[in-house]
Amino acid sequence: MAESKPRVAIIMGSDSDLPTMTAAAKILDEFGIEHTMRISSAHRTPKMTAALAEGLEDAGVKVAIVGAGLAAHLPGVIASLTTIPVIGVPMSGGGLQGLDALYSIVQMPGGVPVAAMSIGKHGAKNAAILAAQILALSDPAIRDQLQEFRERQTQGVEEKDRALTAGEL
Amino acid sequence: MAESKPRVAIIMGSDSDLPTMTAAAKILDEFGIEHTMRISSAHRTPKMTAALAEGLEDAGVKVAIVGAGLAAHLPGVIASLTTIPVIGVPMSGGGLQGLDALYSIVQMPGGVPVAAMSIGKHGAKNAAILAAQILALSDPAIRDQLQEFRERQTQGVEEKDRALTAGEL
Amino acid sequence: MAESKPRVAIIMGSDSDLPTMTAAAKILDEFGIEHTMRISSAHRTPKMTAALAEGLEDAGVKVAIVGAGLAAHLPGVIASLTTIPVIGVPMSGGGLQGLDALYSIVQMPGGVPVAAMSIGKHGAKNAAILAAQILALSDPAIRDQLQEFRERQTQGVEEKDRALTAGEL
Amino acid sequence: MAESKPRVAIIMGSDSDLPTMTAAAKILDEFGIEHTMRISSAHRTPKMTAALAEGLEDAGVKVAIVGAGLAAHLPGVIASLTTIPVIGVPMSGGGLQGLDALYSIVQMPGGVPVAAMSIGKHGAKNAAILAAQILALSDPAIRDQLQEFRERQTQGVEEKDRALTAGEL
Amino acid sequence: MAESKPRVAIIMGSDSDLPTMTAAAKILDEFGIEHTMRISSAHRTPKMTAALAEGLEDAGVKVAIVGAGLAAHLPGVIASLTTIPVIGVPMSGGGLQGLDALYSIVQMPGGVPVAAMSIGKHGAKNAAILAAQILALSDPAIRDQLQEFRERQTQGVEEKDRALTAGEL
Amino acid sequence: MAESKPRVAIIMGSDSDLPTMTAAAKILDEFGIEHTMRISSAHRTPKMTAALAEGLEDAGVKVAIVGAGLAAHLPGVIASLTTIPVIGVPMSGGGLQGLDALYSIVQMPGGVPVAAMSIGKHGAKNAAILAAQILALSDPAIRDQLQEFRERQTQGVEEKDRALTAGEL
Amino acid sequence: MAESKPRVAIIMGSDSDLPTMTAAAKILDEFGIEHTMRISSAHRTPKMTAALAEGLEDAGVKVAIVGAGLAAHLPGVIASLTTIPVIGVPMSGGGLQGLDALYSIVQMPGGVPVAAMSIGKHGAKNAAILAAQILALSDPAIRDQLQEFRERQTQGVEEKDRALTAGEL
Amino acid sequence: MAESKPRVAIIMGSDSDLPTMTAAAKILDEFGIEHTMRISSAHRTPKMTAALAEGLEDAGVKVAIVGAGLAAHLPGVIASLTTIPVIGVPMSGGGLQGLDALYSIVQMPGGVPVAAMSIGKHGAKNAAILAAQILALSDPAIRDQLQEFRERQTQGVEEKDRALTAGEL
Repeated sequence: MAESKPRVAIIMGSDSDLPTMTAAAKILDEFGIEHTMRISSAHRTPKMTAALAEGLEDAGVKVAIVGAGLAAHLPGVIASLTTIPVIGVPMSGGGLQGLDALYSIVQMPGGVPVAAMSIGKHGAKNAAILAAQILALSDPAIRDQLQEFRERQTQGVEEKDRALTAGEL
Repeated sequence: MAESKPRVAIIMGSDSDLPTMTAAAKILDEFGIEHTMRISSAHRTPKMTAALAEGLEDAGVKVAIVGAGLAAHLPGVIASLTTIPVIGVPMSGGGLQGLDALYSIVQMPGGVPVAAMSIGKHGAKNAAILAAQILALSDPAIRDQLQEFRERQTQGVEEKDRALTAGEL
Repeated sequence: MAESKPRVAIIMGSDSDLPTMTAAAKILDEFGIEHTMRISSAHRTPKMTAALAEGLEDAGVKVAIVGAGLAAHLPGVIASLTTIPVIGVPMSGGGLQGLDALYSIVQMPGGVPVAAMSIGKHGAKNAAILAAQILALSDPAIRDQLQEFRERQTQGVEEKDRALTAGEL
Repeated sequence: MAESKPRVAIIMGSDSDLPTMTAAAKILDEFGIEHTMRISSAHRTPKMTAALAEGLEDAGVKVAIVGAGLAAHLPGVIASLTTIPVIGVPMSGGGLQGLDALYSIVQMPGGVPVAAMSIGKHGAKNAAILAAQILALSDPAIRDQLQEFRERQTQGVEEKDRALTAGEL
Repeated sequence: MAESKPRVAIIMGSDSDLPTMTAAAKILDEFGIEHTMRISSAHRTPKMTAALAEGLEDAGVKVAIVGAGLAAHLPGVIASLTTIPVIGVPMSGGGLQGLDALYSIVQMPGGVPVAAMSIGKHGAKNAAILAAQILALSDPAIRDQLQEFRERQTQGVEEKDRALTAGEL
Repeated sequence: MAESKPRVAIIMGSDSDLPTMTAAAKILDEFGIEHTMRISSAHRTPKMTAALAEGLEDAGVKVAIVGAGLAAHLPGVIASLTTIPVIGVPMSGGGLQGLDALYSIVQMPGGVPVAAMSIGKHGAKNAAILAAQILALSDPAIRDQLQEFRERQTQGVEEKDRALTAGEL
Repeated sequence: MAESKPRVAIIMGSDSDLPTMTAAAKILDEFGIEHTMRISSAHRTPKMTAALAEGLEDAGVKVAIVGAGLAAHLPGVIASLTTIPVIGVPMSGGGLQGLDALYSIVQMPGGVPVAAMSIGKHGAKNAAILAAQILALSDPAIRDQLQEFRERQTQGVEEKDRALTAGEL
Repeated sequence: MAESKPRVAIIMGSDSDLPTMTAAAKILDEFGIEHTMRISSAHRTPKMTAALAEGLEDAGVKVAIVGAGLAAHLPGVIASLTTIPVIGVPMSGGGLQGLDALYSIVQMPGGVPVAAMSIGKHGAKNAAILAAQILALSDPAIRDQLQEFRERQTQGVEEKDRALTAGEL
């Protein structure tokens, strides 16, 4: 995990979110995008969260990926203190199995957007891909990698289809 | 609305919440509990909200009643910056008709509680009564008023029942 | 678990709620707040529940924490028979996984409030913290403990963040 | 509305439930089943509700039809204090449009049943029909009326079908 | 399980509902209420279901307890072909975990009622108790048993409360 | 509306469903597909419904379009008594705004399928198009009409797009 | 699994859907209906999916059975590019346990229908039966098989009922 | 509305989405960001949609804002055919009031992200702000405008708060 000059910050509210958010880090590693991972809670460390959010842009971070569960205020709180794009990932689990986190992340009122992803690991992975898509707008190398990623992804499905047709699945 | 030495702060994220939150103010007025009403948004005025929350206790406020809709982060954000009790009121309206606000307010993770009320005016009214119940623990005058309020409330239902039985409804 | 002169009563509808509600007792123990734990069902022991609720204030109880699952009428039933603050904790489990209990606890009609917490152990823990916050309004020792609790909590997150940054997680 | 020697009690938590619950009274009138209508709130008049519930059987009431909205504890509270059948009708309206009342009425824990009907007027009407079906078990006159009611109902649909086929709708 | 002269019929759509519906049979056994158990599917054996429903009354059955999952049409289909009271029990399980069955059973349109119970075993148990409550209206022996059942149930909770207070739980 | 030799039967549980189901009839008219419209209730006219379902195939009906609201058992009941394809349309309205009807129609257990459409008029329109698609498998004229329908539909969107681009919307 | 001259195409978005969709293949095998199984993703292989959809009719496919999970766009995407009937099967699993897939499949806007089945294996099985019902309209052999399938299904339930009555379950 | 050299494309599935999506256009106008508005349906004009999506990048479009209702496949379909960031806006309305569209947009499987916004006009407005935030990463002028927008927004709330405190609301 590259730590110097991170362009993406992955922030989560609790270390229990780490297994999910690691899926985002893996994709960024695959793309060679420098990133940092932080734990900061909207409710238990509000000042650290505010300082972190306010410092993102000066630290050169271009996109923040923020995971949170239950009431899941963290992505919105960070988005309120920076103007870089904030991508929110709802954690699954808890009595409402992530629906609470999803609503809390996606239903932001007009004025301060958060880009909501799907619940859990799918969402964490997609957050990293979306971050790459955003960075690719001004970084042709990432754009090329995205094209290759998409092609590999397409080939993966094609290979599964071939295997199924061949009776190998 | 008494403004000097407020013991309860009613805070809402938008002036569109005012018609609902006024139901809380009315009850506090009825009980003669000094209160203040403020508009401060978790996302559009995060610093004002932080300053407001951090100043509540020093200003002599004992209970905060906080209304918010949609992602409804305001009650949790305020609760993270004070240790006085915070009561959250989910606004109705929006595509999910208040269910998003309810989940976002009630599903606080362990460590920072928000006392969630029902959606809309019922909740705003109950927030004020709960604030009175909390203040009554160390203020016998409010306790007496609560007893009278409960009795009037009981009599109101009994009167409706009498009217129904008498064929007047 | 201190039993003499309890200031908080933890009440639950069934002994199957005990593993969840113990999370509330632990926090109160940590704060040195005397409490009692009772099992009383809104539906199976309505008279015992009424007697319990009506006797809370005279017994010196300042706050009631009430856990219930499924139709979860217990917090509302107790709140209807006392004017001390009642905090409701929805149990998870059952076909609707706690959503039924959440709705039944939080959607109280105007006039008789219940302070709803999140579903399950998070909610039980928060109920105890909220009880402490209410008691702290007239007990500076608890207020100090709350401050320390918050600080330890903050440090816990900061330590996790440090460990993550150091590659130890 | 026949008031002497009521065999069915229609109870509702608020006079705002009256327009819905009148649908039950109309059906009972149609069947000539004596009934009484009462307003009593689980939360605002808990003692009156308890007295009412405990007196049902001695008053000769065979079935209780109980309507309630929001947290909707009334049917369960009454069921806990009598062993006559209790039929619960969830009111529509409120932020959750009756879903809260439905869950609170239908999700009774094992031991104290409430017979839940559909939300709103359909449910109120069905509550009265179910009460008639219960009474019909020991009253052949009501059984005959139920048969006629069913036949009229069947004919009503058949007539609509005929009219549609004839191009009259 | 008494089979001669059954007063209650327990009907389920599939043998996979048997473990749940057995909870109803156990309660009826406890009360000494003769019952029969049948498997008949609304969709896979529509004619057998119709014949079964139409024959209930002549067979001396006073109450039908009907369990079903998923689309759960069975209780409504049986209710449409008899005028004895029909109690519906939604099975848990499936992608929607019983919510589909609950809606399908409880949301009957005006004219043909089904008495909906809670999802799963709680509901099956309550269905049998409600059947006993209905039969008790004209059978004093069952009424006495219901009183004893309620008392044992109350004592069970009181004993748990005593054990908790004594530190035995 | 052509009535002789109907190939599609549109069946609804109540005349209140007529404004919605007319959307299906209009599409069939547009395609020149003979159809009949009937009102028959699963619960209020179970025998007429059974007779209707059992007679569909002999009457030459190839596809049944069945609309129902609330518990919405009608499509499943008809599907259990015929082997021609049954398309179900959930009505909107009622306390759960069609979600109950949707679940009841779509969650059929394995063995007896119902093809569920979207809630309300969109679903009624699509039911007719799907019926046409099924008939088109053995009727080239309908297939040609479907192609033209699709083309007109495509052109309609293209025209709207052109108008928007031209600043006419 | 017969591969030559397939009349039904079973398409799924991922090989993780295979255990569910195999339930459809088994039923088609039982009926002797030639089918093909393909993996093609709406999002990861959009062009392959378009080519597959556009080629269905020319390949002689009469009905497409399409399974998808989460956002579940695959059935709608295929339906937009062919006029043969498309049957959609929502996969269970994911944070919303198939409810997302169900909504995405069933709530098609007017103009392009998808026939939605129930979530998971029940739905996959029913998709195959519905495909058989559609093919049976012009293939008497399949119609006969459907009749036999229904009869075996009926006998299966009757046998379970007999076993239960005989005390063998 | 500037049409030359658009950097943002606003795409919607139907002209009925125009009143909602205009909220996005207004914000982009305010920021002076060139944009184009298009109507293209995932289901009714799949080829036009594919062509549009595949041409976005070559046309110089940096961000696509895509609104859709009901099954709401349009954002995902466009995202599958481009690697520029796609922001999805769920339309409210329909039987499920936008919840279907929300799930369909936000629950994208891993590999192809869509940035989901809140339901309706709030979401359309936020989509434009997020697009501006993305463009601002390489366009300091937009970054300055975002700062000013945020400040005006903050001042707007502060002014409302001042007015409320002054008794002017």
